[in-house]
Amino acid sequence: MTTAHAPLVVVAPDAFKGSLSAEEAAAALAEGVARAFSAGEAGSPIPEVRRVPMADGGEGTLDALLAAWGAGPRQAIAPDAIGRPRTARYGVSADGSLGVLELAEASGLPGVSDVAARPREAHTRGCGVVAVALLEAGVEEIVVCLGGSASTDGGAGFLRELGVRLLDGDGREVPEGGGALANVVRVDGRGLHPRARQVRWRLAVDVANPLVGPNGSAAVYGPQKGATPEDVSVLDAALADWARVIAIDPSTAGLGAAGGVPAGLLGVLGSSVVSISPGARLVAEAAGLPEALAGAHLVLTGEGGLDAQSTQGKVVGTVAALAAETNPLSPPPVVAIVGRVDLSHAQVRHMGLHAAFSIAPGPIVLDDLVAIATDRLRDVAAGVAGLSLRRR
Amino acid sequence: MTTAHAPLVVVAPDAFKGSLSAEEAAAALAEGVARAFSAGEAGSPIPEVRRVPMADGGEGTLDALLAAWGAGPRQAIAPDAIGRPRTARYGVSADGSLGVLELAEASGLPGVSDVAARPREAHTRGCGVVAVALLEAGVEEIVVCLGGSASTDGGAGFLRELGVRLLDGDGREVPEGGGALANVVRVDGRGLHPRARQVRWRLAVDVANPLVGPNGSAAVYGPQKGATPEDVSVLDAALADWARVIAIDPSTAGLGAAGGVPAGLLGVLGSSVVSISPGARLVAEAAGLPEALAGAHLVLTGEGGLDAQSTQGKVVGTVAALAAETNPLSPPPVVAIVGRVDLSHAQVRHMGLHAAFSIAPGPIVLDDLVAIATDRLRDVAAGVAGLSLRRR
Repeated sequence: MTTAHAPLVVVAPDAFKGSLSAEEAAAALAEGVARAFSAGEAGSPIPEVRRVPMADGGEGTLDALLAAWGAGPRQAIAPDAIGRPRTARYGVSADGSLGVLELAEASGLPGVSDVAARPREAHTRGCGVVAVALLEAGVEEIVVCLGGSASTDGGAGFLRELGVRLLDGDGREVPEGGGALANVVRVDGRGLHPRARQVRWRLAVDVANPLVGPNGSAAVYGPQKGATPEDVSVLDAALADWARVIAIDPSTAGLGAAGGVPAGLLGVLGSSVVSISPGARLVAEAAGLPEALAGAHLVLTGEGGLDAQSTQGKVVGTVAALAAETNPLSPPPVVAIVGRVDLSHAQVRHMGLHAAFSIAPGPIVLDDLVAIATDRLRDVAAGVAGLSLRRR
Repeated sequence: MTTAHAPLVVVAPDAFKGSLSAEEAAAALAEGVARAFSAGEAGSPIPEVRRVPMADGGEGTLDALLAAWGAGPRQAIAPDAIGRPRTARYGVSADGSLGVLELAEASGLPGVSDVAARPREAHTRGCGVVAVALLEAGVEEIVVCLGGSASTDGGAGFLRELGVRLLDGDGREVPEGGGALANVVRVDGRGLHPRARQVRWRLAVDVANPLVGPNGSAAVYGPQKGATPEDVSVLDAALADWARVIAIDPSTAGLGAAGGVPAGLLGVLGSSVVSISPGARLVAEAAGLPEALAGAHLVLTGEGGLDAQSTQGKVVGTVAALAAETNPLSPPPVVAIVGRVDLSHAQVRHMGLHAAFSIAPGPIVLDDLVAIATDRLRDVAAGVAGLSLRRR
């Protein structure tokens, strides 16, 4: 085959928030690589370019995984955080084995921004409805992207949709929401969906907060969901009670994401929850990035802004780490092409990157840069690819 | 030798106007290359970095050549364009063979901006004084950087300082300035400095205008030197007369630079004027860039702004062309690191560059970019060097 020695380039950017989706960014980077080899690099074989749009488990993850899978979105009618029906998108991989849902699609804070906040009553039933749709679809693994929630219900609503009953001392179901968790004395799992413990649940968390306490879910994120100091106090105590009932350690990092959803799922579904981890690596695995990276000669990633927070759990640092892990004998150069770089070269190297370049062409204001972001991503990628892959 | 296979990197930037001299830019680029190999590129030999600060024959050329030569400036007291004494700097290479003078040092427009313009009388005697100092110093070749002149005297003042007499029909010296050239009927070269025809004169021109006519020296540049339309008409006619007396073709491109200095020197000194050419290549040769480029594995250049005008006679395009010419069998990648890039990747490639990167870290205003220019040049150079020179 003439392509036997064609270099392999993997493009795996995050979305450029406020500008380009991960899929659009990946397309621009891929086009740049192609142009580098149609613009005078005679004699070099045209590289194979693999596009793996990435996300960090937060907003945009569903779209990135759909793009990576080459699949379209599915839709479900699900209750929002206060019970009103809305349309929620979710995704299933082309081979039907993987499912992804974003909690915020059904149970997100923006969906209830038109009414007065009900921090003690808001729930995650909608997210559970989507989860059931995925169980019914027959997937073997479900990625749950946690972030942007309106509720602090410890995952109670989610679990109820899976068929779990939360009972008080009189054997009656407690009301919706986190506030009522203080009354739960027993969980009845007899009605649990038959596939709920057969699938592998992977929870993508965007924060490392524990369930309760001063760094807990209610204290840190309650106020932005409309909780007064009294609400926070009530919710924190209720989550602590809930942790005792389901026998989980409420100080575990990450269990406080999305109003405590990981706590509820881990407590009730046990070892079916195979990972609770920062989102980017989980997304990378679901998107097939490790497989795509095998044998890569150059890896291009990127995001809107590269700073000291881009390492842990974020896309750029994760892509760099995976590129090295996947190719231990000949790690490919990993280059970030970003909207803004706020790191020195030493910091860039420390992140596992070989270089980071901004798409800014010179002094420019943000709006103007956004307007030319696609062209500049393409041009900078072309320069990097031409430089990195040329023969010597 | 352990350095036998160390890669060779040549850094040859122009000044970043309003921000960094060519020498400062070269230092920042060189430091970046060094850092790339102290930041985790284990196993790769430390590259040898050759610094060749560049210029295009205009402002900054003297400083760039002094830096390239490792020589300090010399000074002469010379008349300004209206005859007042001022200090003019010039340079001699470390081995004493090459001299450089900037016309604007003695005879520049800024030097007479404090008085009303005298476009018909302004002259280039000061430049001639510096040239004589170089002849006396024993140099074998003189680079004359033409640009920024206050006069339109066809090089008359310059030639007078070399010992030439410009005589009218009565055998008397005509007055100073371009207006009086209409009265010259004969040039008496008997008093010419004995070395004036022994040295090689290389004239670096920044414009390609002919001596006379609608695109000529008086018509195009006279007004910015204070010439009224009547002055322009008088000067243009006088330059035409002057061309006849010294028997040069006034339509030749470049002879109209600096108020016609190349015309006068070519007419009187003849084949001692070995080149009249755009400045960057001339500067490159005087600075030893071709020799420095031999065997280079990576070439970094740069300037404040890279645009469509950066090709002909400018530093970046010249460095790219020389890198290829000097290494025909294995042309090294040439990368421009610039304040602003206004070209697509295809245009960058067309210029002979492999890539062009801006030092802008993201959206930013000019003043802020100037403030971090050194750091960013260093960091971008480190990224480029690490990417380009890594072993595969």
